[in-house]
Amino acid sequence: MTYETPRSRLRPVEEALGALDEAERILLTTHINADGDGAGSEVGLAAWLLERGKKVRIINPTPFPEPLGFLLPDRSWVMDMGSDAGKDWAGAADLAVVLDTGEVPRIGGVSGLIESTPTIVIDHHPPGPSPVPGISLRDPAACATGELVFDLLMAAGGPWPRDAVRGLYVAILTDTGGFRFGNTSADAHRIVAFLLEKGAEPEALFRLTYGNAPLRKLRLLHAALGELEVDPDGTLAWMTVPGGAFEETGATADDIEGLVDYPRDIQGVEVGLLFRETVKGFTKVSFRSNGAVDVNALARRFGGGGHVKASGALVERPLGQVREEVLEAVRGAIRQGRGDV
Amino acid sequence: MTYETPRSRLRPVEEALGALDEAERILLTTHINADGDGAGSEVGLAAWLLERGKKVRIINPTPFPEPLGFLLPDRSWVMDMGSDAGKDWAGAADLAVVLDTGEVPRIGGVSGLIESTPTIVIDHHPPGPSPVPGISLRDPAACATGELVFDLLMAAGGPWPRDAVRGLYVAILTDTGGFRFGNTSADAHRIVAFLLEKGAEPEALFRLTYGNAPLRKLRLLHAALGELEVDPDGTLAWMTVPGGAFEETGATADDIEGLVDYPRDIQGVEVGLLFRETVKGFTKVSFRSNGAVDVNALARRFGGGGHVKASGALVERPLGQVREEVLEAVRGAIRQGRGDV
Repeated sequence: MTYETPRSRLRPVEEALGALDEAERILLTTHINADGDGAGSEVGLAAWLLERGKKVRIINPTPFPEPLGFLLPDRSWVMDMGSDAGKDWAGAADLAVVLDTGEVPRIGGVSGLIESTPTIVIDHHPPGPSPVPGISLRDPAACATGELVFDLLMAAGGPWPRDAVRGLYVAILTDTGGFRFGNTSADAHRIVAFLLEKGAEPEALFRLTYGNAPLRKLRLLHAALGELEVDPDGTLAWMTVPGGAFEETGATADDIEGLVDYPRDIQGVEVGLLFRETVKGFTKVSFRSNGAVDVNALARRFGGGGHVKASGALVERPLGQVREEVLEAVRGAIRQGRGDV
Repeated sequence: MTYETPRSRLRPVEEALGALDEAERILLTTHINADGDGAGSEVGLAAWLLERGKKVRIINPTPFPEPLGFLLPDRSWVMDMGSDAGKDWAGAADLAVVLDTGEVPRIGGVSGLIESTPTIVIDHHPPGPSPVPGISLRDPAACATGELVFDLLMAAGGPWPRDAVRGLYVAILTDTGGFRFGNTSADAHRIVAFLLEKGAEPEALFRLTYGNAPLRKLRLLHAALGELEVDPDGTLAWMTVPGGAFEETGATADDIEGLVDYPRDIQGVEVGLLFRETVKGFTKVSFRSNGAVDVNALARRFGGGGHVKASGALVERPLGQVREEVLEAVRGAIRQGRGDV
């Protein structure tokens, strides 16, 4: 079967298309610290709107992510939220589109800029307590926000400019973790098949998205691998970013991304952890589970949270102390999951 | 558009189906050192044939790959080529299917076992100089041999037992490098969409296939990252597996897999290399290119070869000497590619 937009989305898709058709000057935004889905969906929608003769700008609460800058054919697509030019542009916009979040606090300072602007929300996250008002194209069943933007373009019958195709491909690629997370649906693959036929180049786009680590990131990985430990029974593994590693390698917080997967991906491991001191006396813990253990529940005990298989916590205590407490808590959860308590 | 078997394949598919229908006792094999496509295609075909009441065994020239053992619901599906039982079974088979290679030398000792057995070749590699005779379902346009086995099952109208679905998913997953290599076609995604609907679980199968590194592999990575070097202009990066690292970490040659991607994936790098001493006085070099440089040509200068973007060479000289020579050759190729010679 070929891809078809789910029936339940057809009406919000039509509503959103209607509003986009009527608008002339459209502001696109996404959540704080845009990821591949947020940024890719913005570029996808922007490229298509520009092709239809609209005036479009991307104005985000935090800078457009540097590693995804390759998606922008022209830097002028993006404006700085804090600049006078950005404020002026936002003030004159007749429509705002909020992508990949539907929550007011998640768009930070942009919420002030679009308070009185008619708004469309396009998002695949479950609803939260502070919804952005306006036309709502939301469906948590979509693998990515990029899927919902794809539905818009499909309903409009295209066109499919190169930058739109690339943006939507990267949105789905990243939010499905390279087609491997649980949200990777048959529809996700069908949409990607379509995007490939429209010219998306998997090899090049994968490289541009992932195959581009700064050298300092590998230096940081080396330092952390030197601190890799595994419990004797092999079910719990953890790494610690050694004190001073950021200074020595020049790495930044961005370079932490993906590190916790190394302990998690070891044969037989049920829970993988990463510890690091953020500022003196504060310890960040990343939790990853391979299934049986609910690390969201664990992270909550340390004031954090997230998902059942991926969570985090920032604890105001020194690293050594936090590490001991967390390791004990995780060992308890693993034993409990196995029924030997 | 939904997936359709390319017209050019319909006739060989029918021929192969006819032969499979008539046979009762079918031997499946693949090339030396089976990879995910070879092993996954074997399991996919075996599961389907068993469902149709055939007697089936997998008999490979080298052991079924341990990391892919999860694909086998029952170890008795596989027999040892060298065992009396294996020889007896092969001797009584009335059909052999050679998967993921079409070359006699690539099936090693199995070629002797099936010399007088009618044979089907199912393969997506370009033809070589020593073809296995028999019915030929070959197409280098297929993303994986798994795609051609999929065509068989489609033409037969199924059935789609769980093990067949998983085997074919893993065949395509691995041969497309997780849907990112240049052979990742729109059809590859369409087939995978179909397999997902038949029950393939992307998250679990990805983890089983890739997220399962032995601890010693991370220890080896740590040792090699300690020897990571990058030329001042950032275009050439290389790692060296330090002498003694295999002994210290307990790692094996299998654990080398993927290491060369670390230098290759650094921002700005055009060529990534991995050096290691195999036995005293022999140096193995892995070459990876990000596009402009033809590393096949480079590897050939050192007695090796492979593909334009991924090649290797085994040189009978000490590591230090080979490394200097290779680095110089690669720097020359990078300069030449840039036009400043």
